[in-house]
Amino acid sequence: MKDSLRRFQVEKISAEGWEEEETSVIAEKPVTLFLNDKEVVTLLATPENLKELAVGFMLSEGWLQENKPIQRVEVDPGGSVRVRVNYHPAMSEKLFLRRTITSGCGRGTIFYNVLDSLGAKRIRSAARISKEQVFRLMRDLNQRSVLYRKSGSVHGAALAEGKKIRIFCEDIGRHNAVDKVLGAAFLQGVSPAGKILLTSGRVSSEIMVKAIKRRIPFLFSYSGPTDLAVDMARQTGVTLIGYVRGNRLRIYSHGERVGR
Amino acid sequence: MKDSLRRFQVEKISAEGWEEEETSVIAEKPVTLFLNDKEVVTLLATPENLKELAVGFMLSEGWLQENKPIQRVEVDPGGSVRVRVNYHPAMSEKLFLRRTITSGCGRGTIFYNVLDSLGAKRIRSAARISKEQVFRLMRDLNQRSVLYRKSGSVHGAALAEGKKIRIFCEDIGRHNAVDKVLGAAFLQGVSPAGKILLTSGRVSSEIMVKAIKRRIPFLFSYSGPTDLAVDMARQTGVTLIGYVRGNRLRIYSHGERVGR
Repeated sequence: MKDSLRRFQVEKISAEGWEEEETSVIAEKPVTLFLNDKEVVTLLATPENLKELAVGFMLSEGWLQENKPIQRVEVDPGGSVRVRVNYHPAMSEKLFLRRTITSGCGRGTIFYNVLDSLGAKRIRSAARISKEQVFRLMRDLNQRSVLYRKSGSVHGAALAEGKKIRIFCEDIGRHNAVDKVLGAAFLQGVSPAGKILLTSGRVSSEIMVKAIKRRIPFLFSYSGPTDLAVDMARQTGVTLIGYVRGNRLRIYSHGERVGR
Repeated sequence: MKDSLRRFQVEKISAEGWEEEETSVIAEKPVTLFLNDKEVVTLLATPENLKELAVGFMLSEGWLQENKPIQRVEVDPGGSVRVRVNYHPAMSEKLFLRRTITSGCGRGTIFYNVLDSLGAKRIRSAARISKEQVFRLMRDLNQRSVLYRKSGSVHGAALAEGKKIRIFCEDIGRHNAVDKVLGAAFLQGVSPAGKILLTSGRVSSEIMVKAIKRRIPFLFSYSGPTDLAVDMARQTGVTLIGYVRGNRLRIYSHGERVGR
């Protein structure tokens, strides 16, 4: 955690006037990922859980296979992460689905193909959850957010099972926080399928795709979803709950899994 | 605005119990950009101010030149935007600086080159601002955020001059909101140089780069910056103010421009 926060001398203005103050600021560093010695991407991320970030990102992109082991993951002192697998990774340009999809990395129409292919794999889960469980898990997410409390500008994500958070990570980027959690799950041999994904951030289509790919039937957020994320959740069978605040929440899809 | 919000039937749980409710959800659509008939990128964005988004994004990437006119910008009904210029656009891969920089689009080391080249262009501005002006502008940003009030999950950005907001835009993405504002400024013939950029979102290095490229000496946010953004602001001469909330704020850099 010590590399994830930096102390800065700033000036603070409040009702008490103008004063000098030392404050914590969240760290953002370029992290270059290598897969089998090939440089594949540079992410801007908070420099902790970098092995988990690399693995989670590569899984989200579809470059690594969920059912095959990773040989080695190493973090260089300079911040690069090297992942090695003993199979030929599927560096398909088709699955490179991000906020920006450059013509070099895939075509706009790919987006719709991804939606189509996801729609085909419906998530069937008989798991149920109570509203008290949702409130408790989201309170727990908040309590674990150490960097958030110290710097104010960071996203938290977690993988939970039943009433317990199993894995928790933070990052300046909401995509990174989710990728770190899913990478950690893979490295610990925990399958996310059937479990619960928690996020502090907005649920855009990209976050929803990460959950659907891992067959996660529950996705909860403090914040709200986009219309595309709601469409995808309804189509694929994800219970999407947003605006979990205090004792309030909104169920956007598949409320039949929430006990009354 | 009508395309930017969609109504969904959801279930709401609160202290009053469980009820059906119709709620507004922010829209997210893939928007494919073409520059001189070449497909260049697909963004996920809220479908309003798409001309401004296309132009602002292409300026941020360094593909369009600030001092040359645009011949035509057209939005297709399907959501594509076609930008035409009568010069050869600099589609330099070097300037493709985003959250993820793929090996196809640029190398990790490029990032440092961008910082170096930005550091060289110091922003010298004799402009001054009072703390009351900062509070008033950020209150004004909040009041204009119509989509935010209706959907809760959207970012606002604005270009201001003196005490007045000149241009305001919203988007599901904080990068998009800023690009829309800067694209609108270009299309209206308003130079952002010397003016004030307001954002509701976190100030990461990418947001800071957009401001520095336009020679904007003031950047204010409700939220906090990253350490990299603070470093860049200090190095290039941007007055960076964060956590503007009620009558409190924090000055991270170049407080000499804030009147006492």
